[in-house]
Formats: sequence, structure tokens, C-alpha cells
Amino acid sequence: MNNEKKIKSFVMEVDIAVPELGNNTADAERLKEAVKKKYGIESLSVPLTVLKKIPSSIRKWDHRIKLILFEDLRGWFVAGIRNPDDVEPVCGIAADIGTTRIVLRILDLETGKNLGERGFDNPQTVIAPDVLARIRHAEQDAGRNELQSLVIDAVNANILSLCRSCSIDISSVYLFCGAGNTAMTHLFLGIDPSHIIREPYIPCVNVPEPFKAREIGLNMNSEAVVFLFPNIGSYFGGDLISGILYAGIHKKEFPCIMVDVGTNAEVVVGNSDWLIACAGAAGPALEGGMSDMGMTAGPGVIDTVKIDRETGDIKIHTIDERAAIGLCGSGMIDLAAGLFLSGMIDIRGKFAGEKCHGRLYEKDGISYFRLIDKDCSGTGKDIVLSQTDIDSLTSSKAAMYSILEVMVNNTAGLAFDDLSKFYVAGTFGSFINPKSAISIGMLPDIPLEKFEVLGNSSLGGAAKLLLDPDCFEELNKIRQSITYIELNVNQEFMNIFSGAKFYPHTDRSRFPSVK
Amino acid sequence: MNNEKKIKSFVMEVDIAVPELGNNTADAERLKEAVKKKYGIESLSVPLTVLKKIPSSIRKWDHRIKLILFEDLRGWFVAGIRNPDDVEPVCGIAADIGTTRIVLRILDLETGKNLGERGFDNPQTVIAPDVLARIRHAEQDAGRNELQSLVIDAVNANILSLCRSCSIDISSVYLFCGAGNTAMTHLFLGIDPSHIIREPYIPCVNVPEPFKAREIGLNMNSEAVVFLFPNIGSYFGGDLISGILYAGIHKKEFPCIMVDVGTNAEVVVGNSDWLIACAGAAGPALEGGMSDMGMTAGPGVIDTVKIDRETGDIKIHTIDERAAIGLCGSGMIDLAAGLFLSGMIDIRGKFAGEKCHGRLYEKDGISYFRLIDKDCSGTGKDIVLSQTDIDSLTSSKAAMYSILEVMVNNTAGLAFDDLSKFYVAGTFGSFINPKSAISIGMLPDIPLEKFEVLGNSSLGGAAKLLLDPDCFEELNKIRQSITYIELNVNQEFMNIFSGAKFYPHTDRSRFPSVK
Repeated sequence: MNNEKKIKSFVMEVDIAVPELGNNTADAERLKEAVKKKYGIESLSVPLTVLKKIPSSIRKWDHRIKLILFEDLRGWFVAGIRNPDDVEPVCGIAADIGTTRIVLRILDLETGKNLGERGFDNPQTVIAPDVLARIRHAEQDAGRNELQSLVIDAVNANILSLCRSCSIDISSVYLFCGAGNTAMTHLFLGIDPSHIIREPYIPCVNVPEPFKAREIGLNMNSEAVVFLFPNIGSYFGGDLISGILYAGIHKKEFPCIMVDVGTNAEVVVGNSDWLIACAGAAGPALEGGMSDMGMTAGPGVIDTVKIDRETGDIKIHTIDERAAIGLCGSGMIDLAAGLFLSGMIDIRGKFAGEKCHGRLYEKDGISYFRLIDKDCSGTGKDIVLSQTDIDSLTSSKAAMYSILEVMVNNTAGLAFDDLSKFYVAGTFGSFINPKSAISIGMLPDIPLEKFEVLGNSSLGGAAKLLLDPDCFEELNKIRQSITYIELNVNQEFMNIFSGAKFYPHTDRSRFPSVK
Repeated sequence: MNNEKKIKSFVMEVDIAVPELGNNTADAERLKEAVKKKYGIESLSVPLTVLKKIPSSIRKWDHRIKLILFEDLRGWFVAGIRNPDDVEPVCGIAADIGTTRIVLRILDLETGKNLGERGFDNPQTVIAPDVLARIRHAEQDAGRNELQSLVIDAVNANILSLCRSCSIDISSVYLFCGAGNTAMTHLFLGIDPSHIIREPYIPCVNVPEPFKAREIGLNMNSEAVVFLFPNIGSYFGGDLISGILYAGIHKKEFPCIMVDVGTNAEVVVGNSDWLIACAGAAGPALEGGMSDMGMTAGPGVIDTVKIDRETGDIKIHTIDERAAIGLCGSGMIDLAAGLFLSGMIDIRGKFAGEKCHGRLYEKDGISYFRLIDKDCSGTGKDIVLSQTDIDSLTSSKAAMYSILEVMVNNTAGLAFDDLSKFYVAGTFGSFINPKSAISIGMLPDIPLEKFEVLGNSSLGGAAKLLLDPDCFEELNKIRQSITYIELNVNQEFMNIFSGAKFYPHTDRSRFPSVK
């Protein structure tokens, strides 16, 4: 009985009792009664603007109604009403609100069908590419409004074009679920984020309540509701909570790990009983961090590199198989792995000139490795890798491994082998070849089948929530069971980091598969 | 402990924990935590517009904050925030939203002090004086908007002048609590009321949820909240629920009755266990109803009449002691009582010419009783009472008594003597002399000390709610325990009515005190 009343979708259809003499129940109360009876929802809130439409609508629609409901911390409310005979789908927008890039996905809320996706650069980069500068810009009302308008306008334009591309009227979009880091969440809402970057680093809000889209100027249905994922703190945002929801770590019996390899390395370890998370800049060891590792993926960018250990022959693959124009992160890791395994770089990550098959040359005291000759490249210039590039990668991969070791071994008290799953999230993470990452000692040497690439887990979690009302309870569970760790770059960390700066590590026994 | 956390006012002050390193709790969550700790309120909702003000406000105010909270069916939410050092009072407006007249009262929400009151005619009378015609006018969007604008504009103007008169800025008004009949409640909200007057007589909403004042264009604090009393049905409105709350019938051990003597006779009988209510036009017996009984109270209107049984001398009192210009309802009842007791009208309510001391004359076949000579009146004309006036009063008083008998005896199964209190509500009721009303057989012959005049109970209940958060629970109790009776004008009613058309009644034993 109780199971029958399970709410499986935010879109519901009810039959409303036809009014009769001797029963004073008003239209709104009969509607609420119908929802209570069918779905067990008590205390449904009907906004005044919706209430006004009810008397004529339910009579026109023959006492049937399609409702778009949503839940906040105080219970359920109506986000829209529809003629049940209307054939146009009832839609929602899932959004990954990234610092540099925003991705929207439009979904049919009833069938769950993905109707289209659109990615675009976050226009706030016009003001400042980095979050810190944007937060400073947002300290004044004018700057804050400017940043909010930029992102809202761009989202509006893209919602519109997304709707057009699948022939949906924007009035059919009733829900918007976005996931962003803490600063982006504040900027999207137009809330002063300045205390995020000032000691003691306090956000204005960790659990934003759902609100009307019109309150921030988002153009959808006039009653449409916006939900943004909760943050855990200034440096652990809703995008990561969304990622956890997507990966489902909070429901796993055995410990798992999720690593979001982006500008920062963000790590979550745990299972259905506990979750430990760390995020944010890990001090000087991560300066430059993961972000310096080559260019963003795009046509002509090298994403896969294979080196024959015997002959030193290098095979590359570029995105869209266009002439090579540069290396992205995953290509860089592949290349470093190949160079190390073929002896072209040594355990310190330094070029071993005699083994480089004549590809090495020096300029201004810096060694360069010629990957692609200018005659074959898409730029008309050699595609090269400098010792500086390798050194930077060495730092990054060492930092990554150190964070994993601190989190899994020192904090969670587990061995890497105890992990049942290793989720790699983030756009950058999507292209990483785990075997290469293990070879250079960036990821721990665990069976390859344990690795799973999640793609845009932030967008994935947002879409999941739009299609599954149970996610609210899951979110509460995640928020309650998560422990956020400040990663201190202390002597202990630096010791671990020093060992991890070698290829694959000073302690070779940790990487038995790397030969 | 639990008692300590009792919420005694909608205005609360809390100290918010000062943020510190090692604690990621955001501003909004620390605020909620403080409210939970001090008042036991879980799941407090903070609207986005308030949320935006929090980071700078709590730091400026040294981590103290005054909150104006309000409750809806899903729990508590913030209706405003203030600097706790601000000396201007935090105010609320109570409103009696009558069909013909609207009365506003401004209250200090913390001290409960009445800071001023203002009454004005409902400007919707420009469109139509009666509710029925207004409802028809409101069937079209344009008419509905016009009616809503008229009342909202007038309320805004009067709130402004009320605020000015007590030197309060309108931004210090955070709550508005209004009570009106079902039709007025719909018109105030801009909701189509047309089904109220169409079989099966169904309102759009019986329990309106609180909403932002700006949603209907009421000018107060930008976050101010409007609450309108719930209705029981099309003919039993929030004004009566407010009256019950004000009289406190729902908390009495012994049965009480409340009668609102206005355009309709509305009656509630009950105690803390049960409530029975009837209201609305009782068919032809009440045609013209109570409304024809003289003019509205005002300067020069006769409100008290005393007749010496021996000499037939008539003493009158006028409002503001100005020269008499006419009779209001209470004066009319006094006069009829005096005429009957001195034998100038008989038990059928007909003038007994020989006993009228020469005051009676005839014109066009109708008898007229000269109450005030033109030389002494304020109009330059005689103030007279016609046989038609008396006949109309006879019908009205008979209808009133019949309704009371049906409600108390036939429906509740009580004798009039079982009633521990007899509350007379409504502006008109305020001036009634119960002794006179008993003498003519309008009210039952129970001890005078049981009668209590409530005045504007609708306004009183609205003011009570603004000062006492417990009223929400009381309202729920009232709504749940009330049974609404359709008063059928059937043969049984007409039999009772026939007996009640005599002075005081065909059955004299019912009025032992009337001699």
C-alpha cells in the first residue's frame, strides 16, 4: 500500500473529485486531497499564482490535472500545472555550472529521455578567468549583479536554443537543477561570496532552498523552480555532491573512491556508512596543479600516445583525427608513461638523452622532446614537450598520488586494495588511460577493472535528481554522513610527496604491475 | 525545557555563532541553528531575497539578529530581518476586510500595543454595493483585476496614512493578517470567485496559504507576509473564523453561542469539543434581513431610546449628542421594545392608535409614528417610524430568533439556558441593548450577564493572531471541529418563524422576564 504511493517522478496526474452539493471542499483543497490520496503527500503548498489558475483549469480539463511538484526542506509544493491531454513533454534542465564551462541538458521529466545537450564557456571569464578574482569583483553589489547577469543571460540564451533545437516551448520547462562549486553557486544566486575567501572561509549558504526561476531572471515556465545542489563548505561544492550522487558511493557496501581531476584534485572515499572528502588547493605542492597539464580537449588535440618500448616508435591519436595541434592532459599522461616505460625519461622524470632516438634538443638551457615534426603537425611547428612540462606533470602526479595516499591510507585507514571501485570524474578525467596513470605513479596500482570513468558527474547527478525524487533523501544522507578534511600540507604530506615525485615511486613495491 | 522554547511572538532575537576555522557551517545554517536551539524551530525557510542580505547584516550587527518569522501549513519561514538595536517598532496590520467597510489596525508585534486604527468604505462598492454583483463582475479577468486593485489601493493608502499617523515607516510593517468573508477573501487575492454563487457553491480555496505582500501589490516591508483567515465554505468566511478565535468559543468548557448580526445572521454554537455554525441568507424569511433596520451608526443617529411606560414620554440619545437625523438598528430595537412594553404596539407588532399619545398619523394608508418633531430634529423634518418599518423589524427579529432556536434547540439539542455565554459580534451588534432585544423576542430570555458584546470580532481575531503564534494551532482546531449547517427554510422553520413573529412570541412562557 505504502509502496503503491511511492513518488516516482516530479510529474504526477490526479483526478480531482467533482464538486457536489453538501460538500464545501474548495477547489484547492480537493486538489490537495487527490494528491494526498494518490501519493501520500501531506501539506502540499500551492503558490498564489498557481492557485489563481486552478478554478478555470480543472473545469476546462474535466477535473483531471497534471502537476509538476517539487520538494524543499519543508515538504512538497506545486511548480506547475498542465492539461493532462497536452502532448508536449514536461521538461527539466540539468546544469553543470562550472567555473570555466557550463553544460545544460534538457530532459523529458516523465520518460527520462535526454532531449539535448549544450555546453558553452562561462561568460564570467570576461571579468576574470579565475574564481578568486570573480569573488573579489562580486564584493560590491554592482560587480555581483554584473557577474550574475552574465551567467543568467548565457544560460537563458542556451536554454532557449536548446528548446528550439528539440521543438519545445520554454514554458514547458518547469524544473532547473544545477550543480556548481560553492563560489559559482553563490554567484549564480547573486549572493555575496566574499567570505568564502576570507578567514575563516565561510559561505553564506550551504543548503540553498529551491526558489522560483523568475527570482533570478531565468526564463522558463513562469512557475518554474530552481534547485541548486548543497555545498559542504567553501571548498567542497555542490558539483562534488552531485558527483557522489551520480556515482552512488553513498549506497555502496564496500569502500570506493571518486577523484575529480580538474583544476583541483577533489577526492571522496567511503561507502554507505561513511564518506570522507577533501578538496581545494593543497598548497605549494599543487601550485599550478592539474591545470597546467596541456590544453583542453578539442579537434586536433592529441589524446592518446603509444610508444613501442623496443623501437621507440611513437603512435598518436588526435581528436577527430585531425592534424595534431597540441597535447591534452590525457595525452600528456600517456606520453609520460610511454617515455618512462621506454627509458626516455628516468625515475626522476628527467630526459635520458641517449635513449631519445634523436628527438631531444636543447635551447636556452632547457631540453625539448620533439613529438611531432612540423611537416606533419597542424600548426606548421614542431609539437614538443619540454623538461619544464615534464617537471610540472611530475609535481602534479605526485600531488595527486600523495592526496590519494593521505586520504585512503592515513585518513580512512584503508589499503588501496581495499577499494572496490575507483571512479574518475570530470571532463579531464574522462580521457585518462588508467594504465598510463598507474605507470607514472599518479594513480595507485590496483586492477584496471576497478577503474570507472564517470564523465561529467556533476551534470549526471543533476539529471539524476530531476528524474528521481528519492534523491532528496539521498542528498540528506550524503550531507549528513560526509566528513570534510582540510588537507594540510605539513611535513608528513611533504614526505609522502617527495617519494611520489619519482617514476612511479621511490617504493617500487607499490607498483608491481609497472615493469 | 520544552516550555522555555515556547514561541511567544513572531518577532524573535537570536545570537548567531561567530564563525571560526575548522567549522564550515555557512551563515544561513548558523542562523537556522541559532533559531532551532533557542526556539525549537526545525526546517526554517529563508527566502532568497532575505538570504542575500544575511552575510553583510549579521557581520554589521555583531552576529545578533532580530527575525520576523511566520508559519504556514508546512512550517516556519523568515518574513524579515532587523538590526536588533533598531528602536522603531516591528509592526503588523490586522484587517477586517468587510464587504461594505474595511478596518485596519496597526500593532507593535513585540509589545502588542495598538498603535492606531483606521476604517474606510470598501471602494469596491463603486462597482457594486452587493457581493453578488461584484462576484459577477469578477468573472472576467479585467473585472477581477479592477476589483482587486480598488481594494488593494485603498488598503495601501490607509496603511500609509496609518503609519504616518504613528510615525512608523511602512518598511517596519512585516505582517498583514486579514479576515473577510469568502467572496471578499477571493477578491482580495484576485482569485475567480464565480463558483461561490453557482451550484454547488464551491470556493476556489478555503485555506489560503500565507504569501508575500508584493505578490498582490500591498506596500509594506519588501519581505512582508500576508495571511488571510481560512473559510469553511462559500457562506461561512474567514471573518467568522476570526470571530470564533477572538471570542474563544473553541476553548470553553460549557456551550456558548456567538451571533454576528450583520447583513446576514451568522451563528456559531459550541465549546472546546464541538462547533456548529450556520450562515448566509435563510431564504425569503430573511429577505431584506437585518440590513433594512435603519441607517448606519454616525453622528446624530439615535442609538438609544427609552419610553416611560406610564407617561409614554420618550427619551432618546444620539451619537455625539447631535440633533437627531435618524435611527440605527440598536435604536430601532430599543424603540420597538419601548413601544411594545408601553402598549403602543400590540403583540402582532401593529400600532395601537389609542395608546400612542397623539403621535400616530396616517398617510396613503400607512400609519406613521412621530418619534421626533421637525423642530427638534437635525433634518428639519419629523423623524418617523412607519408600520412598514416595524413589519420589517418584526420579520427580522423573528428570523433571528428562529435561527437561534433551530441552531440551539433543534441542531445542538440544547436549551437556551444551557448556554454559558451569548456573544454578540459585529459593528451593528455592538450597540444592541440585550434587554431590548429580549423584550421584542429577538434574543432568547436568558440572564443579561451572559451577554457579551464583542465589537469588531473579525478585526479582533486578526489582531490576536498577529500577537500569538499559538493561534495557528487554534485555527486548525476550529476548522477541524466545526460543522457547517445549511439552514433550510422548510416547513419546520416556517412554523418556528410564525410563532416568533409575535411580540415577544406566541409562547409567552419563553420570555418570563418580559412583562
